[in-house]
Amino acid sequence: MSADTVRLGPNKYGKAEVRLVRITRDTPRHEIEDLTITSQLRGDVSGSFLSGDNSRIVATDTQKNTVFAFAGRHGVGSPERFLGLLADHFTESFEWIDGGLWQAEQHEWARILSGGPGEDHSFVRSGQATRLAAVQVVAGERHVFGGVKDLTVLKSTGSEFWGYPATEFTTLPETNDRVMATSVTGRWRYLPEAVARGIDYNGLFDDVRRLLLERFADVHSLALQQTLYEMGRAVIEARPEIAEVRFAMPNKHHFVYDIARFGIENEGEVFIADDRPYGLIEGSVIRAGVADADDAWRELPSFV
Amino acid sequence: MSADTVRLGPNKYGKAEVRLVRITRDTPRHEIEDLTITSQLRGDVSGSFLSGDNSRIVATDTQKNTVFAFAGRHGVGSPERFLGLLADHFTESFEWIDGGLWQAEQHEWARILSGGPGEDHSFVRSGQATRLAAVQVVAGERHVFGGVKDLTVLKSTGSEFWGYPATEFTTLPETNDRVMATSVTGRWRYLPEAVARGIDYNGLFDDVRRLLLERFADVHSLALQQTLYEMGRAVIEARPEIAEVRFAMPNKHHFVYDIARFGIENEGEVFIADDRPYGLIEGSVIRAGVADADDAWRELPSFV
Amino acid sequence: MSADTVRLGPNKYGKAEVRLVRITRDTPRHEIEDLTITSQLRGDVSGSFLSGDNSRIVATDTQKNTVFAFAGRHGVGSPERFLGLLADHFTESFEWIDGGLWQAEQHEWARILSGGPGEDHSFVRSGQATRLAAVQVVAGERHVFGGVKDLTVLKSTGSEFWGYPATEFTTLPETNDRVMATSVTGRWRYLPEAVARGIDYNGLFDDVRRLLLERFADVHSLALQQTLYEMGRAVIEARPEIAEVRFAMPNKHHFVYDIARFGIENEGEVFIADDRPYGLIEGSVIRAGVADADDAWRELPSFV
Amino acid sequence: MSADTVRLGPNKYGKAEVRLVRITRDTPRHEIEDLTITSQLRGDVSGSFLSGDNSRIVATDTQKNTVFAFAGRHGVGSPERFLGLLADHFTESFEWIDGGLWQAEQHEWARILSGGPGEDHSFVRSGQATRLAAVQVVAGERHVFGGVKDLTVLKSTGSEFWGYPATEFTTLPETNDRVMATSVTGRWRYLPEAVARGIDYNGLFDDVRRLLLERFADVHSLALQQTLYEMGRAVIEARPEIAEVRFAMPNKHHFVYDIARFGIENEGEVFIADDRPYGLIEGSVIRAGVADADDAWRELPSFV
Repeated sequence: MSADTVRLGPNKYGKAEVRLVRITRDTPRHEIEDLTITSQLRGDVSGSFLSGDNSRIVATDTQKNTVFAFAGRHGVGSPERFLGLLADHFTESFEWIDGGLWQAEQHEWARILSGGPGEDHSFVRSGQATRLAAVQVVAGERHVFGGVKDLTVLKSTGSEFWGYPATEFTTLPETNDRVMATSVTGRWRYLPEAVARGIDYNGLFDDVRRLLLERFADVHSLALQQTLYEMGRAVIEARPEIAEVRFAMPNKHHFVYDIARFGIENEGEVFIADDRPYGLIEGSVIRAGVADADDAWRELPSFV
Repeated sequence: MSADTVRLGPNKYGKAEVRLVRITRDTPRHEIEDLTITSQLRGDVSGSFLSGDNSRIVATDTQKNTVFAFAGRHGVGSPERFLGLLADHFTESFEWIDGGLWQAEQHEWARILSGGPGEDHSFVRSGQATRLAAVQVVAGERHVFGGVKDLTVLKSTGSEFWGYPATEFTTLPETNDRVMATSVTGRWRYLPEAVARGIDYNGLFDDVRRLLLERFADVHSLALQQTLYEMGRAVIEARPEIAEVRFAMPNKHHFVYDIARFGIENEGEVFIADDRPYGLIEGSVIRAGVADADDAWRELPSFV
Repeated sequence: MSADTVRLGPNKYGKAEVRLVRITRDTPRHEIEDLTITSQLRGDVSGSFLSGDNSRIVATDTQKNTVFAFAGRHGVGSPERFLGLLADHFTESFEWIDGGLWQAEQHEWARILSGGPGEDHSFVRSGQATRLAAVQVVAGERHVFGGVKDLTVLKSTGSEFWGYPATEFTTLPETNDRVMATSVTGRWRYLPEAVARGIDYNGLFDDVRRLLLERFADVHSLALQQTLYEMGRAVIEARPEIAEVRFAMPNKHHFVYDIARFGIENEGEVFIADDRPYGLIEGSVIRAGVADADDAWRELPSFV
Repeated sequence: MSADTVRLGPNKYGKAEVRLVRITRDTPRHEIEDLTITSQLRGDVSGSFLSGDNSRIVATDTQKNTVFAFAGRHGVGSPERFLGLLADHFTESFEWIDGGLWQAEQHEWARILSGGPGEDHSFVRSGQATRLAAVQVVAGERHVFGGVKDLTVLKSTGSEFWGYPATEFTTLPETNDRVMATSVTGRWRYLPEAVARGIDYNGLFDDVRRLLLERFADVHSLALQQTLYEMGRAVIEARPEIAEVRFAMPNKHHFVYDIARFGIENEGEVFIADDRPYGLIEGSVIRAGVADADDAWRELPSFV
């Protein structure tokens, strides 16, 4: 008998990658918000798992409809706000839904400055990075996250790497001048009290991205770890709304290509960009005095 | 001052996606093992983050070299065994390394049965699924995982979905005969005592995959949740080595295409397979009497 | 004025990547056909380009509907047959449509042999390769193609590479024993007279795939070019229906990893599989006496 | 016997996707050029196919080395120029190499304007589009191409689609206000006489991209075909160096989501972005008086 041998453990379910595009056309100068949204619910829906009793299953199709209905009724505004509206709705509308995880990616568009009649309603994907957001409700607490991914940066100098242990399997030569490149994935958790007071999420995102780029550029790097830490520190020191930030930074290797064997000098000018394997540095920077919040990060892709 | 405002939080680092191919050619009939391996270390390496002091950074390049050196010296055998060797090596060789996460994907090859001279050393990628493994060392404990991903299955009947709440935003019609398809990602955690006794990991993998396929086929499904649970139950009941299994199962929607408007009957014969959005069902099944093991799953992509 | 400065050149249009799944359920033992279909039309539709006059534009949405309607009305049978039905329909139904290109990928499923009640209607994606087909109508002629892609194969010995010119930029060492791996993309053109007589396309596909695998395995290779040629030759010699075959074969490099520097022997046992760059060998084998047929291959991805 | 039954048809071979990064550091303000390059040679190398005689095979590894050696010796300058140098080298250095196809993608980086010490050598991937270039040498003629891909654009109004035939399978409603989005892939062929005179390829690329964006924005569209034609016309009228331009434009469908059934108005504000299937419009615009140049486009991905 199943009851004797196994039990149902953690679970959640919902609709993933809902591709929502919201146009605001109150004036001839349109605005566009382009998001990929995932909604997942938690609560006691064990009947569905144990016996196929779906009386507590808010269908994933219904969750999808809700995303579009809410985009029409409330607008988006910011991904953090919009996910919060979804979280409110599902946890308040169904007594057995006591939590969930709502995630968004927001895709960037820039206005095409044509000078002509299409300028007000024409856009080009800028693609410099994708904005992330998440709302997690667990054990009666709400946790709100911002983030960024695919922010790809490179320094052609100002990066060193030396002083690491020489082990039996160490062959990497030390260097005091290398190309350093990474594609930043970062998630920051907002302080609950700041969320309660209200945050200009869009302004904050622009500010954080600017800070990340500036710190990446200006830190003279002895290790990608050091750069990561300084980027996190800058964000936390500048934005009191942020409790902590987690980063995953692949070290996108650029190897000096050996053309000296052909009699051609190569003083840090000709590189081969390698795909795999790659270094992968993951770390978090936490505001002093802020306690760990493991629940907040539960099943959220923190490091990837 | 940084010391006052921020602190370093959880972190790990290493080399990701090392593409190792190991040929065993002790006899003319070669064997092939093809893996993508990620090695990441944890321990007090805060100097690297705080000041670029790399004296405790076992370089990611060194970790890569170690993978290949160990493949030569010890062979692979099974991904679980091989990751365990790496975990032993790094935690025993460096006093400040007290944990880490080692992951593998194993890619399947079948022998080409040509009947000719090439048969002994020629292979074709079978691609039915990718095998997963992981070893996590945290707080002095070792946790070993097996798994599978991209096991894509479909039932053309024997699946119903009805009885869910009719809410304000519900439009999905109920059905007692639908196509159900998913791409199974599953990870199972081995019982530490079974690991200590020794496990035939390769035989177990074949057995688990067979069980997953058979249960998917034979359960008359009232919900993907129910199918998931029954697949997990079958695995745990059959294999005493397994403590728990976690699944992520996208509901790969196949919608009946409306050709009745063209006067053409469609009794469950013509479908459009949709990409996005998709349902996403995640759940775990745990052996009765086994305690939760949150540490074991830390930062391991359990549900994705 | 535009009329003076530019003219409209070659063009076609249609619906791409229609995801059709066709279940045959005439008996309890179901059959599944899973295809991705692209339909594109050619003809004088210049009004649409020059002035937005769509009176000759069979909407891409209509082309999509036609795919599903025909799957219901006629079944699939084989991708070659099904694309032929679409080609007939569009060129016969609209006097200004005088040609087009119809392409299909067919995804493989194997039956799950569960021994239980689900066996008759449960499938697993086998994923060893994807079958290709195309029908091109141009200048009143119809050309029919079969094909395969992502047939990934590897030999762990039986491959040499030496005797190439030593140029100013040559550093590759010669070898008489290397790992050779490729992912075969091949397209074959059927002889029009064989098409007219009727071809068992499904049986032929199985036969060609078997031949490709066997020849890859059994040819002792001095160059991937040689292997390619022998694979093409085998196909043409075995199947009188085929006029010519074109292949694109990436040389998926497996480099011996240098672990001798760690005192570990590596006699062709430990390799790193590299992603990029890769060799890319493209070639065609043509039946003696068959004339070139450039029109047939027009805009068809022959080498990719 | 093979000699009787088959012959070798068209072929070429080389190294694909060489990831070259070239830093120019003549001054503290570095410049970066980031390219993915494919080099393929044509000529009589039939010995390699027929018997594995590699005496005429300039190894693909050698072709890769040449890319890096030339980047060191000559710099890049523009992808068109750099590919031209490679074409010269290979066709002049080996008497049996009488042609080939050289292709490049150039990835865009913007300077990070940090205001700090890193500004001169720090970059962020802008990702708005990827620049393309190709040089084809065939039958003693050289053909030079520029291009762009992944230039993703969207209009939230100013697009209509109506007047198409109502056929048996037509269900699409006509519209005089829809969202139109596409991801432009375009390739333009330079006039040989303009190439001979010398072209500012980088300035031209910026100019063409600006023109494409402006025309996309400003044309009031009755069909994507019309927009394509007007974009091509603008380019040819503005840049006398260009003989013709070929476009592939997927119609990235944005469907109005039906939320009226929930009592929520949706006047072109809430859309679902769909992945597949998609419309696919391909067309070319040719300068008046320019003859067709089929050889130039041979095996070049023109429409894809």
